[in-house]
This record gives sequence, structure tokens and C-alpha cells, in this order.
Amino acid sequence: MSVQKVYATYNQIHKLCQESAPQILEEFKPNLMIAIGGGGYVPARILRSFLKRPGSPNIPIQAIGLSLYENLGTADDPVETPGTKVTRTQWLDMSSLEMANLIGKNILIVDEVDDTRTTLEYAVKELQKDVEIAQQRLGRTGEKTNFGIFVLHNKDKTKKGALPEDMLNENRYVAARTVPDVWICYPWEATDIDEHDRLAHEAENGGSSVQLQ
Amino acid sequence: MSVQKVYATYNQIHKLCQESAPQILEEFKPNLMIAIGGGGYVPARILRSFLKRPGSPNIPIQAIGLSLYENLGTADDPVETPGTKVTRTQWLDMSSLEMANLIGKNILIVDEVDDTRTTLEYAVKELQKDVEIAQQRLGRTGEKTNFGIFVLHNKDKTKKGALPEDMLNENRYVAARTVPDVWICYPWEATDIDEHDRLAHEAENGGSSVQLQ
Repeated sequence: MSVQKVYATYNQIHKLCQESAPQILEEFKPNLMIAIGGGGYVPARILRSFLKRPGSPNIPIQAIGLSLYENLGTADDPVETPGTKVTRTQWLDMSSLEMANLIGKNILIVDEVDDTRTTLEYAVKELQKDVEIAQQRLGRTGEKTNFGIFVLHNKDKTKKGALPEDMLNENRYVAARTVPDVWICYPWEATDIDEHDRLAHEAENGGSSVQLQ
Repeated sequence: MSVQKVYATYNQIHKLCQESAPQILEEFKPNLMIAIGGGGYVPARILRSFLKRPGSPNIPIQAIGLSLYENLGTADDPVETPGTKVTRTQWLDMSSLEMANLIGKNILIVDEVDDTRTTLEYAVKELQKDVEIAQQRLGRTGEKTNFGIFVLHNKDKTKKGALPEDMLNENRYVAARTVPDVWICYPWEATDIDEHDRLAHEAENGGSSVQLQ
């Protein structure tokens, strides 16, 4: 079975961020973004431009690095469990102001795609846990810290990871588009960006069954 | 005096990263990138695609946050010193593996523009200092850690900041383009990306005196 490839151009992604910003500002009012690297870097940077309000400073972006470890099995343990273990390649500095700055804030976690939801579950749970530790250590347990999520694309499929019920109920989860379980080709991965754009516009004009933008 | 505005499209920036990658791989062979946020996020993510070699894992990206503090003077001290003080909004976690991971590596610092060079000087000096501290603490002073820089655009102007002589002499500083002291409009700051692209292509076709791509 071959998976359908769908192409998103930079400008389409720019417009997805632009289009989502008013809803994020209205429903969540983030004070801070946490970009999950590397996929979250580009949408977070674009989104920041559209979340800026005249007279207010830019919303700060902190970055964390997470990658889904693909356990392909060994000779002793040949069971493949693809993409179930998350490893940290960068985290926030618990000992510094970085963690204290999160307390009592509305924190928007940004990634490019919600695929199995494993990475997002990990990010939310671990950040929540670390903020709680910081709140207790600093005697600031009375302050409420809220997490939200923004992704460009949510794949409509059975998820392995779960997100907090209240986040979903309170519209703190925003996906610019919900798409079938296709292979999304992001422009920053393109080795030939002109050909990438041609394929994206061909699908757009040819009435592809899947529209990303 | 009005400063000339010059527009860069996403695809032009994508191609600048693509074009610079072979030189970076040949001259510097980075093991790790450090993106200076928010401007460095997009070029770092694109560059990573072109630095990947078949059979090797992706080069990890760590992010730091730096912003030039604009001291506009006060009633007591009305002297304006624009953009001379760098403040950290995110840094690497000195207490964890993040800093140890830098030791003995070729580390490529990535930002979008080299304007006054103040931010880049700060990043290099502070990272060098912290790596030295980590090397001494871990008894790994014999290992040589090298820093390099990649920016999309270097503005040809008098710089306030300085970079290490050996970095410049050993071609560990790479700017995809050196441009006059113009106002560069990056696509991720555009509120109307179609108009932004139109202005970029108008300059390209109209033979503007400044070419960014």
C-alpha cells in the first residue's frame, strides 16, 4: 500500500498561521510559545508575527527538542515498536528563570503535525510536571498555568497519545487543518523547492482529494 | 533619510540555505547547530535538510534566545545606545548534558542576519566561555571545540561586534549573501505574503540595485 504524498508550500503554511492567530488570541491569549524542534520552529516563528499586538512586545519563544525514537528491534528483542519512545534533545533549564517564567502563564506548545500524538502527550505531561515542581519549590502553587497546542496539521487517525480533556474542551487545542492520514511533505524538507511547489499547485488545481491549505 | 526596503521570499531563503550547505559541509563539517531565536529558527531548520548526509542522522539543533535590548534613555540618563545590550531569553542548560554535548564538537551558530554583529559576538563569546567551564568541570580540557557561523545576509557596514580572527581566517563564517545596509524584509514577518512576494519579484525583474537572492 502506498501512502499518498501531499505537498504544502511555505506560503500556504504562512497563511495557515495567519488564519489561526485570531482564534488563538481570542480563545487562549498565550503569553509564551514553546516550539518543539525541529518541526515546530518554522510555524512558531511565523505565528509569532501574527500574535503580536500593536504596542505589546513579541511573545517569547522557547524551544525544546523532542524526537520519536524508532525502536526497530534487536536480535534479542526483534519486536518493532515504531515511534513510541520520546527522547529529549533539548529541554528548558530547570535551574534558571526559564521554568519560573512559565508559572501562571498561558503556554502555547507549537509543532508542525499531530500524527500519533505521542510527542505532544509527552511535551504536555512533562512540562506540566516540571512547572508543578517549580511552583512548589517557589511557593507559587496558587497560580494556574495553562497549556495549549497549535499544529499546522492534525492527522485524522487513531492516536497513541492522549491530551488533557480540559485542553480539548476549552478549545486550547488548535489545528489549522485536519487531514486524512497522508504523508505531508513540508517545504523545509524539499530538496527541489520549485518542483515541490509545482506538485503542491498541481494538486490544488487538479482537485486532489486532499487539500492541505 | 529613508532606508531602502528589500524583500526576500521563503523560496529564495530556502535556496540560499541549499546553496551554502556544500561549503559548510566541506569547510566546517558541523556536528550541531545552535539557532539564535527567533530569526535563526527558519534558516536553521531549512539548513538541516541540506546538511543531512545519506545514512547519517540529522544534525541536532539547539536553540538559544537572544534579543538586542534597545536602551532608549531615561529622564536621568537620556543617552540613547540603541541595540548594544544583549539579553538572554533562553540559554543552554549548563547543569545537564546539553553543555557537555558541545565539547569537542564543530558547532554552527545560525541567525538570519549579521547586522551590527553585536548579537553574534555575544553568542560566540558566551558559548565559548560556558563550554570552557564545562570542559574544566568534566576534565575534558584537551578537546577542541570549534564555533562557526551561518547567516543568510551579512550587511556590509561598520560592525560594533567582533568575531574571533581564527573563525574568519578558517572560513568558519559563512554568509549566503553580503548586502548593502538595507532594510531586509523576511517573509515570516509579512502580514501579506502575496504582496511581499510581489514586491520581491518586482525588484528581481525590475533590476533593483540590491539583490538578496
